[in-house]
Amino acid sequence: MSVETDPAGNLWATLPGASERAVLIGGHLDSVSNGGWLDGCLNVLGGLEVLRRLAADGPPPVTVRLVDWADEEGFRFGRSLFGSSAASQSLDPELFRGLRDASGAALPEVLAEHGIDLVHARDAGRQLTGAAAYLELHIEQGPVLERLDLPLAVVLGTYGVERHVVRFSGERAHVGATPMDMRRDSVAATARLVLEGRRIAQAAGSVTTVGTGRDARRHRDRRGAALRAGDRPAAPGWRDAAGDARRGRGCSRRIAEEEGCEVAWELQWRIPPRPFHPQLIELADEAVRETVGTSHRMPSGALHDAAEMASAGIPTVMLFVQSLRGLSHNPEEDTRTEHIVASVEALDRLASKTIAWVASG
Amino acid sequence: MSVETDPAGNLWATLPGASERAVLIGGHLDSVSNGGWLDGCLNVLGGLEVLRRLAADGPPPVTVRLVDWADEEGFRFGRSLFGSSAASQSLDPELFRGLRDASGAALPEVLAEHGIDLVHARDAGRQLTGAAAYLELHIEQGPVLERLDLPLAVVLGTYGVERHVVRFSGERAHVGATPMDMRRDSVAATARLVLEGRRIAQAAGSVTTVGTGRDARRHRDRRGAALRAGDRPAAPGWRDAAGDARRGRGCSRRIAEEEGCEVAWELQWRIPPRPFHPQLIELADEAVRETVGTSHRMPSGALHDAAEMASAGIPTVMLFVQSLRGLSHNPEEDTRTEHIVASVEALDRLASKTIAWVASG
Repeated sequence: MSVETDPAGNLWATLPGASERAVLIGGHLDSVSNGGWLDGCLNVLGGLEVLRRLAADGPPPVTVRLVDWADEEGFRFGRSLFGSSAASQSLDPELFRGLRDASGAALPEVLAEHGIDLVHARDAGRQLTGAAAYLELHIEQGPVLERLDLPLAVVLGTYGVERHVVRFSGERAHVGATPMDMRRDSVAATARLVLEGRRIAQAAGSVTTVGTGRDARRHRDRRGAALRAGDRPAAPGWRDAAGDARRGRGCSRRIAEEEGCEVAWELQWRIPPRPFHPQLIELADEAVRETVGTSHRMPSGALHDAAEMASAGIPTVMLFVQSLRGLSHNPEEDTRTEHIVASVEALDRLASKTIAWVASG
Repeated sequence: MSVETDPAGNLWATLPGASERAVLIGGHLDSVSNGGWLDGCLNVLGGLEVLRRLAADGPPPVTVRLVDWADEEGFRFGRSLFGSSAASQSLDPELFRGLRDASGAALPEVLAEHGIDLVHARDAGRQLTGAAAYLELHIEQGPVLERLDLPLAVVLGTYGVERHVVRFSGERAHVGATPMDMRRDSVAATARLVLEGRRIAQAAGSVTTVGTGRDARRHRDRRGAALRAGDRPAAPGWRDAAGDARRGRGCSRRIAEEEGCEVAWELQWRIPPRPFHPQLIELADEAVRETVGTSHRMPSGALHDAAEMASAGIPTVMLFVQSLRGLSHNPEEDTRTEHIVASVEALDRLASKTIAWVASG
């Protein structure tokens, strides 16, 4: 097998097949700071096991490639999916150029230290020539499969996400001498929006998160609100991020008026829902059933590199394996050993089925 | 007049009188960062005008001294009333020893650079030998006098204050993959306490402030809650800080339980209410009425050096002058020129009355 690094820093291992049409198996090795051991090691190491098995079987009918995407988490600079969005052409170098880490280091210089030129990162797109399918295994990172007592699921696609910075501006006054009813308190306004945002998400069956994680660190002097939901109902259980944001915006204006504050919203980024490929969903369903007896279909609330492959028009599907206590981005992130084994076996079955599907045209 | 700096960095100007018993007029020249022009310049400059008038009249029957207290605001290290609490002996050097500013500089070293030895700061107490009264003029820093359309007021004393750091601990999880009802969200718990704290203060007629100003800067990784209120009802309108804190603590425990979080309270400091001297309150009332026709009596929600003098057993009173829009600790802090003039005239009358009162034994 040949191994190469592309202009975005993605690492590719290629097992040449009879055809140049390629089945990609992907994932990432980076994690958030103080994160867990499975997001995203499991997907790359699982894919490596599949490649080992395929290589031992002799040349496959189509080419099979393993990709370790660069900087999926985007933890240091606050933008995720660097490598896969470079490959899919959705990366806008202008949006990345001005990013700085917590110490003030600029993204283009840090990339250059690692041999990556931001301007040419999208040349990684050449790697997708001939790509006919993309497969990715990932821990669920949520509590749904544990609640259902199921080890594995087929992922229908990734939810849409919107991230906004919401700033309430009040008036500075003396904390001791200013009666409560004379205050213009941006902290109280923010507290109200945190709770209203939760009510909106609960009513919509979506999720919303304010001022935590990456966002809070990047916007230390501001208040960061991440509204994360699908932007239109594409399947049962999908979420309406744009609708949530619209409702949140209206709510924030009412709160600002009542609290004597100003409010401003600044869109950080917006990603539409990425539905996966119907035929690959069927194949994944078969692979899961053959491995553990029962399958389940669910959308992903978390973003993944697979969303970029779907947006690039490559037939894509993902497998989820149960996360204990639903924990991820946390050192306590874990999955039962027998479930990890089953997940790699299911990925292996899915790879064989996908190779056959691609080979059959 | 002689001028000297004491071991706490307080600046004293002394106009010797026939008796060594002394009337003190005090204030401070420091301000918060990005603060206004009157807190605390007005009190020192007003006192200077009074001393000029007295000096021109020839030696007074008792000694009169002007003091500019060191670091009243405590903005850099987060503890106020440094100079006056050193003089009153309420300063605990051990509590100040570990303080650091935002850049990490330690308070004892910064004091040493300015010729002050933390260990000996309380030797400033010798300056209070013979002190028979303490007078202080200050802007109101709140909106009460403007609402009443009155220029001046007599201050009955300062409210008690408690400051706590409240920490909610939840569980880190993936913001996209974790349904709202499975979260243990410390941000939501904090938001609820912000709003419950406001309700508690409104019901009690007191004030509470969460995570703003100095406190927020000092506890960047924590949540700071300043509960500010009198700790027992000592006069109509006085506030019950300890009661507010007790209610807030109970409330936070209920919120923590409902949100699946832990909560911990850490007392930062606690100051009891400091009532001023009944006879000096009467004299101040006369001085205000003679100057502007109408007087008003009110407690102070803000802390002042006068509170330290009252705690040292020195008969104390303060005058308030109206603040426009109730703004203070803000560059827009302002007071009408005619009100400033009236306030210094009232301080002058109060000084004469107090000198006569002290001289009469």
